[in-house]
Amino acid sequence: MRRISKTARKALRKLLGPRFLEDEAGRLSYAYDASGLTFVPEAVALPETTEEVSRILALSYEEEFPVIPRGAGTATTGGPLASEGGLVLALSRMDRILEINPEDLVVVVEPGVVNARLKEALAVRGLFYPPDPASLSFSTIGGNVATCAGGPKGLKYGVTRDYVLGVEAVLPGGEVLPLGTRTLKGVMGYDLTRLLVGSEGTLAVLTKITLKVLPLPPARRTLLAAFSSEEAALSGMQAVLEGGGLPAAAEFLDKTALSALDYPQKEARGILLFEFDGTEAGVAEEVSRARETLATRALLLKEASGEEAEALWELRRGLSPALKRLGSRRTADDVVLPRSRLPRFLSEAKARARKYGLTLTCFGHAGDGNLHVNILFQPEEEARARALREEILHLVLELSGTLSGEHGVGLTRRAWLPAEIPARALALMQGLKHLFDPKGLLNPGKIF
Amino acid sequence: MRRISKTARKALRKLLGPRFLEDEAGRLSYAYDASGLTFVPEAVALPETTEEVSRILALSYEEEFPVIPRGAGTATTGGPLASEGGLVLALSRMDRILEINPEDLVVVVEPGVVNARLKEALAVRGLFYPPDPASLSFSTIGGNVATCAGGPKGLKYGVTRDYVLGVEAVLPGGEVLPLGTRTLKGVMGYDLTRLLVGSEGTLAVLTKITLKVLPLPPARRTLLAAFSSEEAALSGMQAVLEGGGLPAAAEFLDKTALSALDYPQKEARGILLFEFDGTEAGVAEEVSRARETLATRALLLKEASGEEAEALWELRRGLSPALKRLGSRRTADDVVLPRSRLPRFLSEAKARARKYGLTLTCFGHAGDGNLHVNILFQPEEEARARALREEILHLVLELSGTLSGEHGVGLTRRAWLPAEIPARALALMQGLKHLFDPKGLLNPGKIF
Ligand SMILES: Cc1cc2nc3c(=O)[nH]c(=O)nc-3n(C[C@H](O)[C@H](O)[C@H](O)COP(=O)(O)OP(=O)(O)OC[C@H]3O[C@@H](n4cnc5c(N)ncnc54)[C@H](O)[C@@H]3O)c2cc1C
Ligand SMILES: Cc1cc2nc3c(=O)[nH]c(=O)nc-3n(C[C@H](O)[C@H](O)[C@H](O)COP(=O)(O)OP(=O)(O)OC[C@H]3O[C@@H](n4cnc5c(N)ncnc54)[C@H](O)[C@@H]3O)c2cc1C
Repeated sequence: MRRISKTARKALRKLLGPRFLEDEAGRLSYAYDASGLTFVPEAVALPETTEEVSRILALSYEEEFPVIPRGAGTATTGGPLASEGGLVLALSRMDRILEINPEDLVVVVEPGVVNARLKEALAVRGLFYPPDPASLSFSTIGGNVATCAGGPKGLKYGVTRDYVLGVEAVLPGGEVLPLGTRTLKGVMGYDLTRLLVGSEGTLAVLTKITLKVLPLPPARRTLLAAFSSEEAALSGMQAVLEGGGLPAAAEFLDKTALSALDYPQKEARGILLFEFDGTEAGVAEEVSRARETLATRALLLKEASGEEAEALWELRRGLSPALKRLGSRRTADDVVLPRSRLPRFLSEAKARARKYGLTLTCFGHAGDGNLHVNILFQPEEEARARALREEILHLVLELSGTLSGEHGVGLTRRAWLPAEIPARALALMQGLKHLFDPKGLLNPGKIF
Repeated sequence: MRRISKTARKALRKLLGPRFLEDEAGRLSYAYDASGLTFVPEAVALPETTEEVSRILALSYEEEFPVIPRGAGTATTGGPLASEGGLVLALSRMDRILEINPEDLVVVVEPGVVNARLKEALAVRGLFYPPDPASLSFSTIGGNVATCAGGPKGLKYGVTRDYVLGVEAVLPGGEVLPLGTRTLKGVMGYDLTRLLVGSEGTLAVLTKITLKVLPLPPARRTLLAAFSSEEAALSGMQAVLEGGGLPAAAEFLDKTALSALDYPQKEARGILLFEFDGTEAGVAEEVSRARETLATRALLLKEASGEEAEALWELRRGLSPALKRLGSRRTADDVVLPRSRLPRFLSEAKARARKYGLTLTCFGHAGDGNLHVNILFQPEEEARARALREEILHLVLELSGTLSGEHGVGLTRRAWLPAEIPARALALMQGLKHLFDPKGLLNPGKIF
């Protein structure tokens, strides 16, 4: 454990004044994320400029203490936690939208801008930033980029990576480096920009982000379809997607999720929620094609737009709290499978859960194969839950899946990295880490 | 210059038999690309399996000779040329489409598959691989991935990077490494897959590529608009794009291009070619909105689909040969600007061309800001052409542009890399190169 020295503390006090937190209340406020883990940092810095971030990282290298970048702390992996001591660098105050340029379809933001705030600022200009993690009302663009966040709209619109054009990165040691472009394309040299996307704050601190945005699609429509079985729901999704349509989103809720939500239609054992967007006429065509495909398969089809549609999406968003209300503990993975393997994965995973006598729920962005896998258990069932999780994650790998579609590695999936990534690739990744951060002081202990 | 040793030649003969070319005719066939540069390699290998590629790269490390990966040799940069001697590794025989999976929206190909062949194989299954470099009838997916190729459809659909899910990479030294996923998403560890995209064959040889594909949009329509000035054309494009539409493509031809093509409508000084795709109804709506926007701005609007539309696109595709027929020599850059800066760039660049008394043509994927910039000159004007090119490239950087949107660095833009990329970023890139290829034997002399 390399602690923050007296000299460093003095320098940080001078640099940041009251924005350098050493008291317990301040430190406790930055000790958590959504993983359930707790690590109280030695201190917290709340920089407001790139210059301050640069000086903090320079000091970290001179005085050899860890720095842990943090956005809104909504990570589910322990990624923004001071697990090896050191200084939490909270970027929430760097929250200016620096430029919205509709002509270039480009925006420039500081890292602390909250995703939903950016979306709102864009919408009034007729613009659209698609990545929409369920945490969008809290999570920051900096955190989204550092984790390559996804969301329901990933099916049609891809993930955060697909929108990052350039970044201003502060390297361990303090150098400020502009990377990437302000243009929609660019291939000069290796793609360091996208290497930083998803690097979970272990290679550099992002202090400015240039994003590509799109024209806001003029029309949007939601379609809910309820099915008598989970299998029917998944095969209905496959049929819609193979029918040539490309919905913006295709979400799935399994029967456990429906019972947690106390869903009124009791014979429904699986639900799909689609969103279609585009031109008025295009959306109408896509929705009617989907309805046709699902007509004989579904118990119920419900179409909505505007506020009525929001109410349908509330169902989906209410699930996480509803599962929490069940009072039990739960594991939280976000695996991805080749879409055709979802039915097999679901039935095998549920069979294993039955074997262990535990409740399992699988739901989420099934359109792109990404499922949240939650095992619900009581504290005394922890060992069994762990064994079941292990079986399920191995099943994912056997079915050519990946262990995380969105949330990343952080601390909680670190032990699993070698199960998915070959040793030589891991060695290359560690070589990269060493290249950027030879002293290993930026977010140490994460990923590897 | 590290030459291929006798031992290495013997081993290669044994490994590849007649697929190891040492004779002059064979070597000459692999001495060119579209840059106009010529470097005759010491020998050529035509592997058919990953295993052979692996053994060749192992031998390269044991016997210390350079290996230069090559697809179809359509690069405009010298990228696939043996500029420092060594063995050209031509991947054209590894051209199997290994899997087309409509359920997963995934295909797996060997690197030598030609882009157009993949597109055709997909179209009959109702699938669509968007990246469409003008060289698509010849260039290979391996080359496309190694250069992060773009094309007209980049405006709506992005570039090659956005479709690469995973690769099988053979590292210098011969290790075979599967990277990335078979799933549509994945964030386990650093993004080595996208680091290899655009790395121009300097970090690894790609022997297998997993691509994401889309459902083929059911409808497509082309709209040609002719304008009385280049400025009117560019501002017409801006108006259409700010009108909220997102055409699949928006190409621009300047007046020099039109006169090279001997375009019949003589009062036309600038042309836009749009393609809209999506549902029938959606396309109709987008086209009519664009027509409305352009009605008072354009001299002529012409709408077409099917073969008639192909004829309009022939105009665009005919430009490169038409410029060649002018008989003069030409420089070839593919700069990108923030779209709002295109008019200013065009007028300033043309003013500079007038100053030098040289003809300049700018055309291409202007929808995403990407312009081909060609200076036409006679051999005796070479020095002036070079000076003009230098001014124009500096102008691009002043206007926050990038020096290459698609074609990459190779040899021809190597001297320009430091003008765009900060020194520390260059040092990191070189560190990366060293990490992957400590002996510097894979495509040496390229990029840096
Ligand atoms: C209810 C809920 C729903 C969620 N839904 C989704 C979802 O649908 N899709 C999804 O992808 N994720 C989801 N998440 C996970 C989480 O919200 C995302 O990972 C999000 O991108 C994190 O953003 P943040 O600002 O909270 O970052 P933090 O949690 O503070 O940090 C995340 C990681 O990024 C690093 N980091 C943060 N800012 C910077 C910076 N400026 N420079 C360098 N590194 C930085 C941190 O070190 C850490 O490793 C959800 C989480 C919750 C609690
Ligand atoms: C008429 C014409 C039009 C063009 N239009 C476009 C366009 O619209 N958009 C665009 O982006 N480009 C365009 N190009 C440039 C060129 O076609 C692209 O760069 C293309 O991607 C190169 O593919 P290739 O198979 O010919 O590769 P090559 O030219 O053989 O090689 C290109 C680079 O990739 C490396 N490479 C090739 N295969 C592999 C592999 N399997 N593993 C590792 N490295 C490899 C080589 O070492 C080299 O550095 C055009 C070229 C021409 C001549």
